[in-house]
Amino acid sequence: MQDLLDRLVADARVFAAKGSVAAYIPALAKIDPRLVGLALADRDGRVVESGATRIPFSIQSVSKVLSLSLVLESRGEEAVFSRVGRESTGDPFNSIIRLETSHLGKPYNPLINAGAIVVSSLLPGRTAVERLASLLDFVRSAIAASEDGRSAAVMVDEEVAASESATGFRNRSIGWFLKELGLVEGDVDEALATYFSQCAIRLDAASLARLGAVFAFDGVLPGGKRLLSTRTARIVKSLMMTCGLYDGSGDFGVEAGLPAKSGVGGGILAAAKGRFGLASFGPALDGRGNSVAGVAMLTALSRELDLFEL
Amino acid sequence: MQDLLDRLVADARVFAAKGSVAAYIPALAKIDPRLVGLALADRDGRVVESGATRIPFSIQSVSKVLSLSLVLESRGEEAVFSRVGRESTGDPFNSIIRLETSHLGKPYNPLINAGAIVVSSLLPGRTAVERLASLLDFVRSAIAASEDGRSAAVMVDEEVAASESATGFRNRSIGWFLKELGLVEGDVDEALATYFSQCAIRLDAASLARLGAVFAFDGVLPGGKRLLSTRTARIVKSLMMTCGLYDGSGDFGVEAGLPAKSGVGGGILAAAKGRFGLASFGPALDGRGNSVAGVAMLTALSRELDLFEL
Amino acid sequence: MQDLLDRLVADARVFAAKGSVAAYIPALAKIDPRLVGLALADRDGRVVESGATRIPFSIQSVSKVLSLSLVLESRGEEAVFSRVGRESTGDPFNSIIRLETSHLGKPYNPLINAGAIVVSSLLPGRTAVERLASLLDFVRSAIAASEDGRSAAVMVDEEVAASESATGFRNRSIGWFLKELGLVEGDVDEALATYFSQCAIRLDAASLARLGAVFAFDGVLPGGKRLLSTRTARIVKSLMMTCGLYDGSGDFGVEAGLPAKSGVGGGILAAAKGRFGLASFGPALDGRGNSVAGVAMLTALSRELDLFEL
Amino acid sequence: MQDLLDRLVADARVFAAKGSVAAYIPALAKIDPRLVGLALADRDGRVVESGATRIPFSIQSVSKVLSLSLVLESRGEEAVFSRVGRESTGDPFNSIIRLETSHLGKPYNPLINAGAIVVSSLLPGRTAVERLASLLDFVRSAIAASEDGRSAAVMVDEEVAASESATGFRNRSIGWFLKELGLVEGDVDEALATYFSQCAIRLDAASLARLGAVFAFDGVLPGGKRLLSTRTARIVKSLMMTCGLYDGSGDFGVEAGLPAKSGVGGGILAAAKGRFGLASFGPALDGRGNSVAGVAMLTALSRELDLFEL
Repeated sequence: MQDLLDRLVADARVFAAKGSVAAYIPALAKIDPRLVGLALADRDGRVVESGATRIPFSIQSVSKVLSLSLVLESRGEEAVFSRVGRESTGDPFNSIIRLETSHLGKPYNPLINAGAIVVSSLLPGRTAVERLASLLDFVRSAIAASEDGRSAAVMVDEEVAASESATGFRNRSIGWFLKELGLVEGDVDEALATYFSQCAIRLDAASLARLGAVFAFDGVLPGGKRLLSTRTARIVKSLMMTCGLYDGSGDFGVEAGLPAKSGVGGGILAAAKGRFGLASFGPALDGRGNSVAGVAMLTALSRELDLFEL
Repeated sequence: MQDLLDRLVADARVFAAKGSVAAYIPALAKIDPRLVGLALADRDGRVVESGATRIPFSIQSVSKVLSLSLVLESRGEEAVFSRVGRESTGDPFNSIIRLETSHLGKPYNPLINAGAIVVSSLLPGRTAVERLASLLDFVRSAIAASEDGRSAAVMVDEEVAASESATGFRNRSIGWFLKELGLVEGDVDEALATYFSQCAIRLDAASLARLGAVFAFDGVLPGGKRLLSTRTARIVKSLMMTCGLYDGSGDFGVEAGLPAKSGVGGGILAAAKGRFGLASFGPALDGRGNSVAGVAMLTALSRELDLFEL
Repeated sequence: MQDLLDRLVADARVFAAKGSVAAYIPALAKIDPRLVGLALADRDGRVVESGATRIPFSIQSVSKVLSLSLVLESRGEEAVFSRVGRESTGDPFNSIIRLETSHLGKPYNPLINAGAIVVSSLLPGRTAVERLASLLDFVRSAIAASEDGRSAAVMVDEEVAASESATGFRNRSIGWFLKELGLVEGDVDEALATYFSQCAIRLDAASLARLGAVFAFDGVLPGGKRLLSTRTARIVKSLMMTCGLYDGSGDFGVEAGLPAKSGVGGGILAAAKGRFGLASFGPALDGRGNSVAGVAMLTALSRELDLFEL
Repeated sequence: MQDLLDRLVADARVFAAKGSVAAYIPALAKIDPRLVGLALADRDGRVVESGATRIPFSIQSVSKVLSLSLVLESRGEEAVFSRVGRESTGDPFNSIIRLETSHLGKPYNPLINAGAIVVSSLLPGRTAVERLASLLDFVRSAIAASEDGRSAAVMVDEEVAASESATGFRNRSIGWFLKELGLVEGDVDEALATYFSQCAIRLDAASLARLGAVFAFDGVLPGGKRLLSTRTARIVKSLMMTCGLYDGSGDFGVEAGLPAKSGVGGGILAAAKGRFGLASFGPALDGRGNSVAGVAMLTALSRELDLFEL
């Protein structure tokens, strides 16, 4: 397995030149585009890893599946899906159009920005600070159960959060539209503060693979403790399958056949049912915002280990 | 002429039952839907009027042509039309869709909300308060030149302004999208404050007819003083002709053949080139947000006095 | 006047280099892009002209206002406007989107392709051949009344018609969508045949100016015979004002202030109320499909002769 | 297993009253909405079934996955995916909008009408008749391998095909738009004829379950003969997972976690990897065009047998 990962990482280095790092925030733009890492966590929390798997990076949209999981657990399905749908859109992740055109009166799914902002506003806590703390606790619980107890590595990059807050005009526009639709309770700026902070969480690929394992084993942590209900894990995996890689979700589904969630920080979390949690890192992105190296490595891994789930 | 207006006002009273007053703000919803007024101001500032022409009402979107005029005069065409187009949209006045879809990267015209917010942000002054003061001065100049010097009637309804600010979520969403497009300099909330205030200006139909006369006589006030350049007056009239009555602009153009601007407060300002400024009042609105009585009266007046301009 | 036209034509020759001729049909693409002509017809049918005003060209979308006029006369307003709206769209002339999205269930106006196809299907006659014959008769009546009786010049370019029919896939797509909406009676191919043929009518600018005069004088021909009701002429002029120059209608309204209709063959017909019918020719088009030289000449002419109508 | 199916079918009968049969074609509208059937085919071709599983019905959009499979096998991935994407849309199945708006220049996926029309045009054969024959042969091959050799039951309902051809205006509109995009080779009417015919194929639920088994066992028929490559089977299953149930694909993915394809004739084909082919029948449809009873039964079956694949 180590050899396989080493080979995939080596092969993937060529993809760095085929993408470009997210540049909309200076803090993201200065990362080395040649970094590549791949990690795999098994049922017992053991991690096999290769390359840049201990360098923390901004998880960005990967955070959407973490907050969704916690909100499903703490508030229940009805609270979530009365405010957010479960359908793909075919639109860019930051599109505002369907909020105006759709008869649904709510974002199509929790993995586009509009839906994720609504979900973030439902995290346990009365303020942005409390809600972020809830999410960080949840993430630490998931990772801490691992053998090497690396929970200390879970933190928020305040520079990135501040930068997103200062320049996230489109997300503010979406936030106010959601307010009009009655989907954000209380203060819009506070809801956005939660969202900007969760996107700025920093994790390394090894930790991300452990989080992936939570989904792969339907919510059960290494050692047998249950963090999520099977139902929550499956809801989130199904949404990852249909909407996890932005406009490239269908392509990834056809090629890798795995539920996954990408972020513009270069990370991808994936889950191979009953087998592994997976994570890749590679900050050079394709035109749809997905890690070029990550997509290539996870696709190859799916073929090598026959992980195609359908 | 007085007889004609009396007859049109009498005929129009039946239309009150066919529409409903704007209800999105309590302060607007409590107006008497049966009020009807019609006024006409000639080159010398003389006003012929009938019905409820001395009851001030919220001018709402009629303010868009006033701020546009002042900004064209003070900042010039380039400053305006580099940020806002001059084309109709066919979309609702508060639509946000084209800000995302259009290759223009700017609102299609200054009479939809998105365009008007940009224009308001260009009013002379560094703060919302200063910009509103500039606009009020401009409006007073236009009306004060009239024989009865009624400028004192120009005021802002603070209750309406506060209410629009507190509930104008869609306009805030538009404001932040404009910020993303680089079309709002400085603070978005400050720009929106200007916009909400200008919509809350109160005027009566007699005053509105005097403002209409400024356009009808290509910028020249009674007595001969020039308030607007001919060019500015014509630009604004052309935009009123194509986009002045929301989704009903084309219908009104076909039926009345006059440049006009409506507001959801029930007012319509119109200009008959070289003949009269016109204004109607009637708070019962049709499904497109135009005064039912106003459209009917101005259409009839255009036929009776042969005002069709094309 | 002759001097003025000569000067405007001379000035406009430089614009040929700034546009490009319509290339979607070979028959249109082979025209000399440097041709420029300008003509003006007065109440008595006298034509002042300069440049290429006796070279027939494909009138293309200018035909839309001719068929609309005849259908309004022969079938009445209700027949037309129950099937086609009167509002601008902001969309490309050949867009199909609003047929699906709009609650109207009909094209927004008769000057976009969708609306024009519906109108053409309403021309007097049971077949495409009969309907085209009706339209040609109508056009000949309008031109024949002129002093030099040049009606013989009205003909259809069969090569262009065949070419449009063979390659007009988008218009066929629109035609079938209209069929679904219940807006095309009988055979779709027959309705499209009418439309393709009317677009292929050939006229020179001098004749087009005479047609413009029909609108300028509210339907009355030189000599006093009435071809169109005042109402029909005004409806068509109002729609030209708001939708006559594709996505450039608003700009032209602001700059020239005249109702006009352009075609991708390079012609523009305009009407100066009570003064002149106008026509320009110049096959080099801007990005919106309007003649670069034509827009420039008509705008300059409007300023020189103070033709701004609002 | 038989008991389970009997129970699910009995429970599902109540759903007939909650939907309504497809009414756009008289031939579809006259079916009994109370029919309910459920069938399951295992690796060896054995079928367990309950209720109305031997009544042939119009498979409609279920045919899209059959033609896609055959075209992938006969023409290869490149031929298909150069003309059709692999992403969900969030739009109605018969929407034409993205053909105009998308930069892709092709339908988003092969399971919306636009994509399916393109795929049908690629079926082996030079004419609609030949292409339909190819598809019928393929379907018969898949079913004939079953123990009871029921291939004779595969036929086309000519009345339905003729009816769809006569009234399928929207599909004709889509067909011509595809022609404009260069995605339909040769005659549009011929391509549509293939599409209308394939939608009119009649099968019963027992046969449909056998077809489902082809996907469930990655292309291998009972007895071990391979009909599809593993790759083809997986591509089709992945697309079913993301786009198989129209606007309800995401919901079904969350609830049942199975790749499936529905048709407005009331059928649903599904595949449980390595376990069963599944099919349900129930002509009463929900607002999205999916069988109410079918969705309920397959969801319940997924829970009872733990078929959730992610």
